[in-house]
Amino acid sequence: MAYPDHLTDLLEDFLGRIDYGEDGETSPLAEAMNYSLLAGGKRIRPVLMMSTGEMFGRPARELLPTAAAIEMIHTYSLIHDDLPSFDDDDLRRGMPTCHVKYGESVAILAGDALFAEAYRIICEQQEADAATKLAVIDEISIATGLKGMVGGQYLDVAGFDEGEESVRLLHSLKTGRLIIACVRCGALLAEAPEKELEKLVVFAAELGLLFQIKDDILDVVGETAILGKNAGSDERLEKRTYVSTFGLERSRELARESRDKALAALGEVVADTAGLAGITNYIFERQR
Amino acid sequence: MAYPDHLTDLLEDFLGRIDYGEDGETSPLAEAMNYSLLAGGKRIRPVLMMSTGEMFGRPARELLPTAAAIEMIHTYSLIHDDLPSFDDDDLRRGMPTCHVKYGESVAILAGDALFAEAYRIICEQQEADAATKLAVIDEISIATGLKGMVGGQYLDVAGFDEGEESVRLLHSLKTGRLIIACVRCGALLAEAPEKELEKLVVFAAELGLLFQIKDDILDVVGETAILGKNAGSDERLEKRTYVSTFGLERSRELARESRDKALAALGEVVADTAGLAGITNYIFERQR
Repeated sequence: MAYPDHLTDLLEDFLGRIDYGEDGETSPLAEAMNYSLLAGGKRIRPVLMMSTGEMFGRPARELLPTAAAIEMIHTYSLIHDDLPSFDDDDLRRGMPTCHVKYGESVAILAGDALFAEAYRIICEQQEADAATKLAVIDEISIATGLKGMVGGQYLDVAGFDEGEESVRLLHSLKTGRLIIACVRCGALLAEAPEKELEKLVVFAAELGLLFQIKDDILDVVGETAILGKNAGSDERLEKRTYVSTFGLERSRELARESRDKALAALGEVVADTAGLAGITNYIFERQR
Repeated sequence: MAYPDHLTDLLEDFLGRIDYGEDGETSPLAEAMNYSLLAGGKRIRPVLMMSTGEMFGRPARELLPTAAAIEMIHTYSLIHDDLPSFDDDDLRRGMPTCHVKYGESVAILAGDALFAEAYRIICEQQEADAATKLAVIDEISIATGLKGMVGGQYLDVAGFDEGEESVRLLHSLKTGRLIIACVRCGALLAEAPEKELEKLVVFAAELGLLFQIKDDILDVVGETAILGKNAGSDERLEKRTYVSTFGLERSRELARESRDKALAALGEVVADTAGLAGITNYIFERQR
């Protein structure tokens, strides 16, 4: 059960060919968007989305516009997260962060534009009936709004801290909700049965948890050169993480438990889940 | 031909009752969003949208979700525009700007969340068939992306300056495109004839121009106490404006010409255009 790298390649190719239709005067903004968007990586979120769609018989190729939109939105959140008034990070995917390279205002706008263009790509390029596309757009809006990603980013910068529950809530909003949206969008676009979708949401919630625990562990034990971002930044920013809350050893146990739960949830799904299992194992084993 | 204040009132009421469904922990972010969103004003963009819809027989009340979304997006753009790395403004609608009140990261997130929630409100609350709603969402995405609002904001911060054409391009993107989207969305939701829509787009393009010329004049001749934002900020930021390009007297002439052209375009439209004429006159005569 290996990571479906062919889906990463498909997406990479699609992202590289996005045409924003910008004029010459605004092309430096498109350059800043692409600088962050085309920085590589495993593309876990869109790959998860396409792999889910494939499970229910829709070819990944047909899901590329929505997959790209999800990666654009993820990139926008990273750009804003790295800003001086947020995590003040200067390194991302082994390169200077967007604001270090292009300045703060351009970085903010690059994020804003990626968000707008993400919706546009779904509207204009995703093949599906109008009601399904609307459901996808609604799902993404929920997952990125106050009850999702941006709500989680707020808790992160506000330094909300009232025990173990706080770290769970923060990450379920900041990373978990969009990961759930990935399986939901894949299932919607492939017209998966509602019953299977419910099981997939259980899986995705656990996968999001696994992703975050692993992220927190890597921030402590990983090396900047391998991570491609600065190690130790959680401690520098005095962030509440799984490691700061539960310690390193317990966090590793929690990661194993989380992987097992995710795979167990996947076992309930009536479809070929090899791709999603491969993603789960990759997230558990990743070193960056 | 007076400004349709009843539409402002309708919108104000709707905005005040938006329920983001946030949890207690994220409610301070909702507070920051509402701080800027509920700061009053004439609500020109959503009023323009609703007035256009009414012209073609769709009651304004039925257009409120999309009208609110447009105002939320406009507010998000103001919040980001006011940031220290942009115009660094501390006063907006007579109150401290969002980042002065809540800090920079929260202000950035308040803008981001308003954008996401704007789409959500259209998806979940706007009554229309799915294809029409998708067309509205697409229109808004175009108007706020690289070829619209954010593209214009980029030109504004990048200090793009190559003559008279540059000031026109900047503002046609930064303010003009969203104003065109307002009439297009109103017409789409009211199923206006394509022929009338084309004339309305000509009108809206002229109205956007009028709005900006007037804005530039007020920045020079207006008083901070009346404007509710700092007068003279264009000069402080060495911005290229209509006044800096054409001088004050010529700008006043251009504003009159622009109003006349807008009203003439309106005269071609086969419908009761009194509301849109009232908006045009208000924009021409406004002192803030």
